[in-house]
Amino acid sequence: MAEFIPSDPPMIVLFTDFGADDIYVPQVKAVLLREAPANTPVIDLLHSVPSFNARAGAHLLAALQPEFPAGTIFMAVVDPGVGSARDAVVVEADGKWYVGPDNGLLSVVAARAARVRTSRIVWRPESLSASFHGRDLFAPVAGWLARGDRLTEKLEPSAGLTLRLGAGDLAEIIYRDHYGNLFTGLRAGSVSCAATIQAGGHVLTYARVFAEAPPRRAFWYENSTGLVEIAISGGSAATELGLDVGSPVTVISPSMPN
Amino acid sequence: MAEFIPSDPPMIVLFTDFGADDIYVPQVKAVLLREAPANTPVIDLLHSVPSFNARAGAHLLAALQPEFPAGTIFMAVVDPGVGSARDAVVVEADGKWYVGPDNGLLSVVAARAARVRTSRIVWRPESLSASFHGRDLFAPVAGWLARGDRLTEKLEPSAGLTLRLGAGDLAEIIYRDHYGNLFTGLRAGSVSCAATIQAGGHVLTYARVFAEAPPRRAFWYENSTGLVEIAISGGSAATELGLDVGSPVTVISPSMPN
Amino acid sequence: MAEFIPSDPPMIVLFTDFGADDIYVPQVKAVLLREAPANTPVIDLLHSVPSFNARAGAHLLAALQPEFPAGTIFMAVVDPGVGSARDAVVVEADGKWYVGPDNGLLSVVAARAARVRTSRIVWRPESLSASFHGRDLFAPVAGWLARGDRLTEKLEPSAGLTLRLGAGDLAEIIYRDHYGNLFTGLRAGSVSCAATIQAGGHVLTYARVFAEAPPRRAFWYENSTGLVEIAISGGSAATELGLDVGSPVTVISPSMPN
Repeated sequence: MAEFIPSDPPMIVLFTDFGADDIYVPQVKAVLLREAPANTPVIDLLHSVPSFNARAGAHLLAALQPEFPAGTIFMAVVDPGVGSARDAVVVEADGKWYVGPDNGLLSVVAARAARVRTSRIVWRPESLSASFHGRDLFAPVAGWLARGDRLTEKLEPSAGLTLRLGAGDLAEIIYRDHYGNLFTGLRAGSVSCAATIQAGGHVLTYARVFAEAPPRRAFWYENSTGLVEIAISGGSAATELGLDVGSPVTVISPSMPN
Repeated sequence: MAEFIPSDPPMIVLFTDFGADDIYVPQVKAVLLREAPANTPVIDLLHSVPSFNARAGAHLLAALQPEFPAGTIFMAVVDPGVGSARDAVVVEADGKWYVGPDNGLLSVVAARAARVRTSRIVWRPESLSASFHGRDLFAPVAGWLARGDRLTEKLEPSAGLTLRLGAGDLAEIIYRDHYGNLFTGLRAGSVSCAATIQAGGHVLTYARVFAEAPPRRAFWYENSTGLVEIAISGGSAATELGLDVGSPVTVISPSMPN
Repeated sequence: MAEFIPSDPPMIVLFTDFGADDIYVPQVKAVLLREAPANTPVIDLLHSVPSFNARAGAHLLAALQPEFPAGTIFMAVVDPGVGSARDAVVVEADGKWYVGPDNGLLSVVAARAARVRTSRIVWRPESLSASFHGRDLFAPVAGWLARGDRLTEKLEPSAGLTLRLGAGDLAEIIYRDHYGNLFTGLRAGSVSCAATIQAGGHVLTYARVFAEAPPRRAFWYENSTGLVEIAISGGSAATELGLDVGSPVTVISPSMPN
């Protein structure tokens, strides 16, 4: 693919569990309209991150962020602890910015990056709702970063994130798409095509693509984000296999005895 | 929060029961692209207002509109009577514009405003579909208002709305968000933290925020829009309590005997 | 309705089965941001085309495209055969552009157009995922067309589409909207108001509009896209009649014996 050129102003990418058809995202966008430069592109990357699940979100965000150019500002919010003592942070990782809670959500991206800088958001708005920091705290910060403001008064350098999930893969289902395909937290680059994937008592072999898989039989393949995905051609793997987010998966290498 | 500055052109905010992933909203947007000034911000506030339910929509709109700056143009359409004799109106209330049917949907905002002016839309397009006034009638009017056109030929001053729901609160569930949280039509400012809320045989006490509520126990709190909301930390109140839009709720004040 | 004036740059209209709240559309939009001119309007026409169903999609696209002005670029992708040998094409039909797979999806629009030109996309990106040509192949082509680039190196003239569904109507349910209304592939212009529609054992008579139909009784009417639609006022025809996409329908003309 052609190189992404950083846009000016940079794009803001939203990654939340707020739901695409609910009242939360438009309130965030009203704040971005006010605080970010005119013509800032705002992209709804995903608003159906598994609800309250920062761990699945962390691995999904790490898989999806390479699609976006340097300079991109991610506002990533999956925040069951909103209103508690968890911190609010800005992470700069390999030239991209991430604004969100310090609850693990940004920690897989941070752990896999070559260059990382972490800051705590010490600024607080005059009126901060107890339940919607996406609108009141994270959106203004994302908007100001898009203006090129580096927020020296509002951020404080930090030694790193408090809650860290590490750089490794996650051997679980982390996302179910609307077709019923199941994304795992395993990067396919490290899994041999000769390996089988076990999940919920099912044993799945590899196919390169849907059109090459036997009709209506579950298989695994490297999906367009580079993750191991479990799918059924023309059907819903989630429904037919009885699997969902959180289900564990196991890779059985070809040389291992069954 | 910082003051909202009216944008130029003003933003158009859509509030409908058209569904976010259906064929209706894009047709409205195609009309706005044609009729509103270039670069008019268009915000999808909500397209899952409870279907056909102008009463719930009226209270939800009244709770959500304060997030948007003066000058904002709301196109609000929940319109089960489309094609019947119900009128089409423009309401100017405290510096914001509301375009929609005269079926109660705009009447709570109007009743609560300090300054209100109501006009009937007497203009009709050459070709008006019987079922989609959102596209054919309301969207052009919203687009022209965004141009700054005050539509003297197309509107007619009116003494007020025909169907009025009043300024008071609504002691019912008016919205279920995608987490399963239940919004009531009660403004929390008038409910004491010591009060309990009764709904469907359940008795709910107050918590300030999710993180302070006992895990997996239903509670009520003041949500980010200022309404009394019934929720369960990490779960779906709608599913677990068997409540939905339309369910009545009762406030039990602390001084009252049970 | 007023005439649509072609915009400059032209709008890009997305029509897919990618889901509105999933990870696919934002990746397409990131590519369009990179490849299309700044300020290109991008409209999400529909992302819930019945999954894998190019035939239903073809008839729905043909019904919806008249809402959009000459010059519009449609990226239409319902592509169960992605990764197989099916071709990728650009169709220019009556002054609008359609980019997508040669699997029937564009063929009803093409068959009904007065002027059609078909080209095969011979360009391939350096890195083409096996499962997401929407992002890797079709989105760049749509973006370049929006720039006014006619892609002489990347397209090859073709005698026509390989898979053709013809210009005729489809006597089936082709879409279920979020209210539960059922769109057929029959254009209402050719069906008499005196005709009844039979579907799944139900016999449905005509009503001009929801407000004139008997409450909670199924009827048929000409919907806002010009198709015969089966609906229930205040209810879900899909649920109450047990019909869905693919269910056959029959028109019984008034002069025919039962």
